Amino acid sequence: MIDDPRWDHLILDVGLATLLDNGVPYGAIERGAIGWRDGRIVFAGAQSALPGEPHALARHVMSLPGTWITPGLVDCHTHLVFGGDRAREFEQRLEGASYEEIARAGGGIVSSVRATRAAGEDDLLHQSLPRARALLADGVTTLEIKSGYGLEPDAERRMLRVARRIGEALGIDVRTTFLGLHALPPEYTGRRDDYVALVCDTMLPSLADEGLVDAVDAFCEGIGFTPAETQRLFDKATTLGLPVKLHAEQLSDLGGAALVARYGGLSADHLEWTSDEGVRAMAKAGTVAVLLPGAYYALRDTRPPPIAAFREHGVAMAVATDLNPGTSPLLSLRMAMGMACTLFRLTPEEALRGATVHAARALGLDDRGVLAVGRRADLAMWNVGHPSELCYWIGGHLLRESWVAGERVIVDRG
Amino acid sequence: MIDDPRWDHLILDVGLATLLDNGVPYGAIERGAIGWRDGRIVFAGAQSALPGEPHALARHVMSLPGTWITPGLVDCHTHLVFGGDRAREFEQRLEGASYEEIARAGGGIVSSVRATRAAGEDDLLHQSLPRARALLADGVTTLEIKSGYGLEPDAERRMLRVARRIGEALGIDVRTTFLGLHALPPEYTGRRDDYVALVCDTMLPSLADEGLVDAVDAFCEGIGFTPAETQRLFDKATTLGLPVKLHAEQLSDLGGAALVARYGGLSADHLEWTSDEGVRAMAKAGTVAVLLPGAYYALRDTRPPPIAAFREHGVAMAVATDLNPGTSPLLSLRMAMGMACTLFRLTPEEALRGATVHAARALGLDDRGVLAVGRRADLAMWNVGHPSELCYWIGGHLLRESWVAGERVIVDRG
Ligand SMILES: [Zn+2]
Ligand SMILES: [Zn+2]
Repeated sequence: MIDDPRWDHLILDVGLATLLDNGVPYGAIERGAIGWRDGRIVFAGAQSALPGEPHALARHVMSLPGTWITPGLVDCHTHLVFGGDRAREFEQRLEGASYEEIARAGGGIVSSVRATRAAGEDDLLHQSLPRARALLADGVTTLEIKSGYGLEPDAERRMLRVARRIGEALGIDVRTTFLGLHALPPEYTGRRDDYVALVCDTMLPSLADEGLVDAVDAFCEGIGFTPAETQRLFDKATTLGLPVKLHAEQLSDLGGAALVARYGGLSADHLEWTSDEGVRAMAKAGTVAVLLPGAYYALRDTRPPPIAAFREHGVAMAVATDLNPGTSPLLSLRMAMGMACTLFRLTPEEALRGATVHAARALGLDDRGVLAVGRRADLAMWNVGHPSELCYWIGGHLLRESWVAGERVIVDRG
Repeated sequence: MIDDPRWDHLILDVGLATLLDNGVPYGAIERGAIGWRDGRIVFAGAQSALPGEPHALARHVMSLPGTWITPGLVDCHTHLVFGGDRAREFEQRLEGASYEEIARAGGGIVSSVRATRAAGEDDLLHQSLPRARALLADGVTTLEIKSGYGLEPDAERRMLRVARRIGEALGIDVRTTFLGLHALPPEYTGRRDDYVALVCDTMLPSLADEGLVDAVDAFCEGIGFTPAETQRLFDKATTLGLPVKLHAEQLSDLGGAALVARYGGLSADHLEWTSDEGVRAMAKAGTVAVLLPGAYYALRDTRPPPIAAFREHGVAMAVATDLNPGTSPLLSLRMAMGMACTLFRLTPEEALRGATVHAARALGLDDRGVLAVGRRADLAMWNVGHPSELCYWIGGHLLRESWVAGERVIVDRG
């Protein structure tokens, strides 16, 4: 069979949301067919344009009427590796506890840092894997995972190793992002510079050397790190040849979007307070705007990112879960897409592009995110009558099955 | 085995959220055990209080550490039987179409009425069943379904018959609610009185006679039906011995809550505009307040129901999906619980009571909704470390398994 020249798989009688800019919404092909071989798409088009009889073309042929196929979803911003959870803190807030009371009781990000540091690598994997599985069960086939709850060399390394192991366990690509500048660890109170130096001069180079860092990120915010500290990190990342991205303008405008754009950054993320100047800088640099409506929803924010300006200036918008224990315990990228529509007024097509082709770009990946010949056969197959249903239904189980690099994904839901 | 005096099942090493008012949050028993026989709970308490050795007590014994058991969830307000969907309308609105444009293009509730009338009974079942399955997959074991997209005798009957068939297909209790006064069908424009007469004098009595009506509901609103029309319906329902409930004060205050309370109604639902007078009337009558945060979210409403007043006056609050194609395409009751917390500031415990014991009360059922000896063994078993996680996580698959009247529920997710 090795010399069989036929395609591995051919799917017939499906809708294809190719997301190519072919003048049709969703780049849609209503009665489509898609075939792949060796993990790459070899045909994606009208069924009538197939170059031969299906069984002569492919070894496995399936007809799936009532199914739409989209590119596999890409979640380009998650913090899904962490110890513990913050459900009790969520509850305490609703019972009327103030942020101070919660902090005094050991809550807040510090509690996630404590639980993450306390967990061994296997334990951390065991705690985090079900969250990755939840994302896969709703169509994700590529995943970004950030460090940032370790905030010390060993614990940050453990987080990134667990991120890689999640990829291996699930058979998907996990892109790792080093977020040492996520929060100032309590033991560095009053010694910010020392911590920034540790992150830039010790942690980043050694973790990069171990092949654990695909990109570098920081939380640039009044309660996080300053633009100058961020710049120091970005300078180091640039020296090491690593791409950068930034948590920017979630709570205030420190000019983070313009800063990351100046470094040719892959993405600026959150962006509720981004100015027109920031938008222009992103447009010029080709920096993707990553929208995180889960955090906006959970924090009951009322100031959406400047969507109209992003559209006007041609800034590509991605949508991600921001899955994290404090501000976005969101286990479904499709739910984030729906929130992007309902809360930020994206169209369902923008939201789908945001969770596929634009999200891939936010990770520096151009081999996936659309259905086109030569791209990876990363496919999500949905039991829907139209792609707009992916954003319309809130919750539910719409995914029929998914494929990564031409292999079917088996999600153990347990 | 028939004469075996032992219990059918006994579950060990679990947390129990009994929801009994025993002075502990959630009526929780941390190291609990629960046993049942012939569909009824025979033991729910501390494992240490078991009256004997487990295998001497029950034929099937399971240890499920890391699991919390709650009463099976009760979704007490859905419109899940309908033809078609309104995803394209959702998309058109996000693309900037006005309500008038959508109405002119045949959208709005009229499009659901058209699609529902056009569907045969089997087709309607086939379209609706996956939605009920989605609710079950997230822990629902009792379900209410309303008519109201037929708006003519045959189509309303078909909806209610499909609701019953869903219950049979899934092995759960479906409570049917007749909502003939949902919208004025287009063919009665200018002849409101004729339609109200048809509903009250013909449709309701004949459907009730066929055993298809467990309760009677109306949409009392400026764009729906007047209090006087609602009263006419309620008078008829009372004559027939049927309990009433009401869509009240979602968009304006017409005094619907007080009206349904006057009839000793089971529930008033939505309630964003309910006055203090309405709250008092509900308290006095024991009418449950059914909160529907899915519609609030999807419509981007900004006026929450008067939660503080409900608490102050001791009005029981239920939480439901309002699953419907126009204003709440919400396929998860747990998601509605989370929204009730985030958007309405319920505590997770209030939300859980709202989706169990109070929801059961809103359906006139007192045999379920808590874990207590003698109640139905309707159980949801969750892979969580604490019940607050049910509201904390947004999406994801937390349900381990569920049981209805002592029988394990098998949910075909396809
Ligand atoms: Zn983040
Ligand atoms: Zn309703």
